[in-house]
Amino acid sequence: MKLSKVGIVGAGQLGRMLALSAYPLGVSCLFLDRSADAPGGQVAPILVGELDDPGRLEELALRSDVLTFDWENIPGCSLAPLRKLTRIRPPRAALEVSQDRLREKALFSALKIPVAAHSRVDARKDLVRATAKLGCRGILKTRRMGYDGKGQCLIERAEDIDVAWDRIGGAGLIYEKLQAFSREISIIGARSQTGDIAFYPLSENIHSGGVLRYSLAPFVDEPLERMARRHLTKVMEHLKYVGVLAIEFFVVDGRLVANEMAPRVHNSGHWTIEGCITSQFENHMRAICGLPLGSTRALGHAAMINFLGQMPDISRLLAMEGLGFHDYGKAQRAGRKLGHCTILRTTARDRNRALADALKLITWC
Amino acid sequence: MKLSKVGIVGAGQLGRMLALSAYPLGVSCLFLDRSADAPGGQVAPILVGELDDPGRLEELALRSDVLTFDWENIPGCSLAPLRKLTRIRPPRAALEVSQDRLREKALFSALKIPVAAHSRVDARKDLVRATAKLGCRGILKTRRMGYDGKGQCLIERAEDIDVAWDRIGGAGLIYEKLQAFSREISIIGARSQTGDIAFYPLSENIHSGGVLRYSLAPFVDEPLERMARRHLTKVMEHLKYVGVLAIEFFVVDGRLVANEMAPRVHNSGHWTIEGCITSQFENHMRAICGLPLGSTRALGHAAMINFLGQMPDISRLLAMEGLGFHDYGKAQRAGRKLGHCTILRTTARDRNRALADALKLITWC
Repeated sequence: MKLSKVGIVGAGQLGRMLALSAYPLGVSCLFLDRSADAPGGQVAPILVGELDDPGRLEELALRSDVLTFDWENIPGCSLAPLRKLTRIRPPRAALEVSQDRLREKALFSALKIPVAAHSRVDARKDLVRATAKLGCRGILKTRRMGYDGKGQCLIERAEDIDVAWDRIGGAGLIYEKLQAFSREISIIGARSQTGDIAFYPLSENIHSGGVLRYSLAPFVDEPLERMARRHLTKVMEHLKYVGVLAIEFFVVDGRLVANEMAPRVHNSGHWTIEGCITSQFENHMRAICGLPLGSTRALGHAAMINFLGQMPDISRLLAMEGLGFHDYGKAQRAGRKLGHCTILRTTARDRNRALADALKLITWC
Repeated sequence: MKLSKVGIVGAGQLGRMLALSAYPLGVSCLFLDRSADAPGGQVAPILVGELDDPGRLEELALRSDVLTFDWENIPGCSLAPLRKLTRIRPPRAALEVSQDRLREKALFSALKIPVAAHSRVDARKDLVRATAKLGCRGILKTRRMGYDGKGQCLIERAEDIDVAWDRIGGAGLIYEKLQAFSREISIIGARSQTGDIAFYPLSENIHSGGVLRYSLAPFVDEPLERMARRHLTKVMEHLKYVGVLAIEFFVVDGRLVANEMAPRVHNSGHWTIEGCITSQFENHMRAICGLPLGSTRALGHAAMINFLGQMPDISRLLAMEGLGFHDYGKAQRAGRKLGHCTILRTTARDRNRALADALKLITWC
């Protein structure tokens, strides 16, 4: 079965890159987002409306052979009625699990995927009890709608408890024990409609202030890669997943601790556009359209650097050999992800040297 | 200088792939073509009108920072008034030369680039004289508007002269002596606004019925490559060229004989999307927007196969490892270029084996 029209809920940069990868397959996309000028709306038609607007979602579903997501936080009650109108890929269950940090951790635990010690917090007394049990070094997070470090508060000693509670206190929180991790890595894979799974090489992700700054891939560590693949496979098979799924892990004493999953293409997989035979975007499209998956083999050693808050001088960056540039078509705003670039080199050493050069041309603000 | 809006005259598959490669650079395109549903019009905004309509061309020029071409046969008189409204890249002179086989050959000869012996034909007696002088094995061609073997007639013996004249006889023809060539190859390069030139590896092109069936690249032959680069450089520098330029050659007794040039991205360069660090489409955009050129280094051995007349079964092709698929979004029609695929392999031998497999899945009609 060949699907030719994909509805995408959310027209951010992920949607934009999905739509651009879809055209060569003969697949066209239709977006739903709040602004006609959203990154995706600049490259494909768009319906303008709220992402959870039942009427707009219904229209999108009726005009699409399959519905997918640039943004996973669509409420289950908005998604449920769409089942009868179109195919939803990835499945609703995957979106719902990933919308709630507590459900996500419960799923990981049920599948024997290690997670940080954590505790549900719905009132101040829950937080006091949690810090008493798990220690005073942890992070208080909202269970829903957090991304890029938003809705999080670090607690490093007893005095921080009140500060954290004043900042984000309320119902719907989770307290997670701080992980003494050496690295943050992620695995991305695609699962086809027939159950085939293609894994991308691991990526090492360097965050600051809760936001991904750059990724290095492939991150080569065979035991960790085997383990990450096993974990990803368990989640995908449990959820009867179709499409691209990412899981972020902390590496703690040489072991993987799952941090969170994203039921969509992921920032740490942007390097696959230049760095792999088939990008995460094309493989998501292939999977949800019922097509065979493409090769995830890496073509070299890649570094992907986010542009945050301001765009760099494109001429200076493009003057670097073997650099792919991605402008998301957004207005500049402090902290906003505006674009990224990917450097591809034959060896990790050359890649690291080029990364250092590129970082001199990029200012995060 | 960064240009952000490119007007493209013609919205065929070349324009479509140009527009798709422009978005990541933060560049958006506006097309002019006869049908809103043209391949380019499916991926970017389009003005609907004849390609030589002065009013439409003026509107396109006024709305663009730079004007470029999917199709080179825009009459000089339509282009001339646009000079004052916008930048035209590649330069008008390149378009005008390439529109006329006689002027093209005159330019090649002036630059000491070998061409087939040929003669101008504007009447039946010119053809009789030409065949007497150059021999009865040759091709009668229209000087203008020929492509993909259209407007050509093979003459193999004296009796064919009348047949050829009856088919395409009239003014504005050229008679070319038939070349006993061993191969057809092409070179593609990009020249930036600052005069830098980036050469792609040579491509070997396999035609049938005047239409390109498949290309193999890189075609490795150092002496020929040096010679082809020298020829391309001479043409580009003479024309003060900016953008991507292709020259097709016959290989005759180990020497290059120029067949024709195309002042645009070229079918024999489609393999560069998957096969090179930077594609011909992105490099054309970089060049005409005043940006530095990207690396033209090959990532492996590629075969590009055209889909002619009917689309193959996408599922069966995508099941092949390392295959890039390109649907141009056109209705099927006998002989029409509807799409292409590119296979990338580490060795030429593996590539040839994969090519044979892919050809079994593709029917030309």
